[in-house]
Amino acid sequence: MSATEMNQQFRLAARPVGLPVAANWQLLEEALAPLEEGQVRVKVLYLSLDPAMRGWMNEGKSYIRPVAIGEVMRAGAVGVVVESRSPRFAAGDHVSGAFGVQRYWTGAADEKSGVVKIDPALAPLPAWLNVLGMPGMTAYFGLLEVGQPKAGETVVVSAAAGAVGMTVGQVARQLGCRVVGIAGGADKCRFVVEELGFDACIDYKEGPLGPGLKQHCPNGVDVYFDNVGGEILDAVLTRINMKARIVICGAISQYNNTTPVKGPANYLSLLVNRARMEGIVVFDYAPRYPEGVARLAQWLREGSFRHREHVVEGFEKFPEALLMLFEGKNFGKLVLKIAEA
Amino acid sequence: MSATEMNQQFRLAARPVGLPVAANWQLLEEALAPLEEGQVRVKVLYLSLDPAMRGWMNEGKSYIRPVAIGEVMRAGAVGVVVESRSPRFAAGDHVSGAFGVQRYWTGAADEKSGVVKIDPALAPLPAWLNVLGMPGMTAYFGLLEVGQPKAGETVVVSAAAGAVGMTVGQVARQLGCRVVGIAGGADKCRFVVEELGFDACIDYKEGPLGPGLKQHCPNGVDVYFDNVGGEILDAVLTRINMKARIVICGAISQYNNTTPVKGPANYLSLLVNRARMEGIVVFDYAPRYPEGVARLAQWLREGSFRHREHVVEGFEKFPEALLMLFEGKNFGKLVLKIAEA
Repeated sequence: MSATEMNQQFRLAARPVGLPVAANWQLLEEALAPLEEGQVRVKVLYLSLDPAMRGWMNEGKSYIRPVAIGEVMRAGAVGVVVESRSPRFAAGDHVSGAFGVQRYWTGAADEKSGVVKIDPALAPLPAWLNVLGMPGMTAYFGLLEVGQPKAGETVVVSAAAGAVGMTVGQVARQLGCRVVGIAGGADKCRFVVEELGFDACIDYKEGPLGPGLKQHCPNGVDVYFDNVGGEILDAVLTRINMKARIVICGAISQYNNTTPVKGPANYLSLLVNRARMEGIVVFDYAPRYPEGVARLAQWLREGSFRHREHVVEGFEKFPEALLMLFEGKNFGKLVLKIAEA
Repeated sequence: MSATEMNQQFRLAARPVGLPVAANWQLLEEALAPLEEGQVRVKVLYLSLDPAMRGWMNEGKSYIRPVAIGEVMRAGAVGVVVESRSPRFAAGDHVSGAFGVQRYWTGAADEKSGVVKIDPALAPLPAWLNVLGMPGMTAYFGLLEVGQPKAGETVVVSAAAGAVGMTVGQVARQLGCRVVGIAGGADKCRFVVEELGFDACIDYKEGPLGPGLKQHCPNGVDVYFDNVGGEILDAVLTRINMKARIVICGAISQYNNTTPVKGPANYLSLLVNRARMEGIVVFDYAPRYPEGVARLAQWLREGSFRHREHVVEGFEKFPEALLMLFEGKNFGKLVLKIAEA
């Protein structure tokens, strides 16, 4: 690689109101600087596109600082080390990290960088952005630590065909739970039941959820893993059991609101049922990721555990690909392939 | 007592829409029947008037079955045994139980009746409907078991001058917490700070809560004990700390809604802060009431713990007295005195 090779980046040009549009982005090209001592250069191969990215584009305090105007858009990614002046990595190593929406990441590869080696022999590269990446860790620790499901209990998960949801349901199944998904459309529901092995899946586009929840959760709902918020959260709240646990992982239905967020009108069901609603942020479990990766990789090896990625190709497609998340157009974990391995 | 003495009862005549009105009640007079073997007759002295009563008047599943149309309105009360054919009680015993809105309660006084002896030497009779009764038990177990406050943490409680709130705050103070109340009006706020020893009290009638919460909770909110719901819950949600606990005890602001309950629009603060919102129903702790009574009575004896009852006199005043709860007109635990001890 020569020092005059070019990097390309999507930077945040303006904060969106509602859905992000083209004017929110600036596509920038700049020459790659020579590496400094301790740095590595990563050629990014796959970018992770996640609902949480919408939140990072907003101003204001959250669980992580907002992306600044003019800054490269934050994104998880996997890539390959193409040049290294760090003893921790060698050219050819596959790595994951918060490399951002750019073709090359250059930085100090110390421990606090969060850059870690990944083993493509365990699972294909896109799976490291899915079941063995953030969504998988979110599902694993959110379900186990906050949801605390017990064998025989009923676990419901929304966005069940999505990156987090598909792993939540499969982990719950491994634990001996009855697992009911909620997803949009017959194709996704079929996938959730036939491929992922959920006991049932309710199509929220088919009409009100009440009858489906009643039919498929005859013993009520013990754990609800919520990725969507809004009316779906409200519907499940009417079916929870005594001492139920609701894991608040996200609220994709509310992220692009230009009106105030719709709070769960049925939250007093928590009182009636002595139930709990609790938030989870995956970063809290970073020290335990190796444990999560090991257990999920073990299930993958055993062959009954599935993952599915929806791969869109082309760096320049980033802005429109991101929107697929909010339109429910992706089927499986959405990743953007930007270079050949 | 002769068998021809008369009982008076308020029965539920129709389910209210919004605030209960006169037409929701039927005042009935009937002769007292002779006692059967195992029964006792209690002359009711003080009735407990509680926000939860509004919920019991609604149809539909809740944590306790609704009061049926034509049934005596459910109410906690204290009274004195005037006649007994049970070995468990003797005439002259003071007792508490769910005697209902009537002058005399007659029933089997077995263990599952919930009728228990009380000791007027520990505290005056009305206090047995307050700090040593359901509100006190709700405060004690809700705060300790669900709120789990630690010394040095900040505890906020709404309806701070109310029956539950005043005990919540004083228990938190005993545990070494910073305690901030929310109440309506300068008189109540003065009482909460000067009499109950809270560190501060915010008057929600004075304007938006945000500035007061910021001023009086400089280190954020670790535990919020919510008796009111609505906008106050939403305001506190913006100030909670990481791993905060929100105890959902009630939502008096929403009980008489004729429109849908307003869900907490800021509930995603639970996610950002990995916080928890959990309901509490006091009946779950019934086996542990003696523990709660003993500890609260100990604090009362030590002299730094206060209770305050707002006593309205006259059985026939029941319908209008109940409304005082929803208009914020009571100052202290609202009880209805219906007979002399």
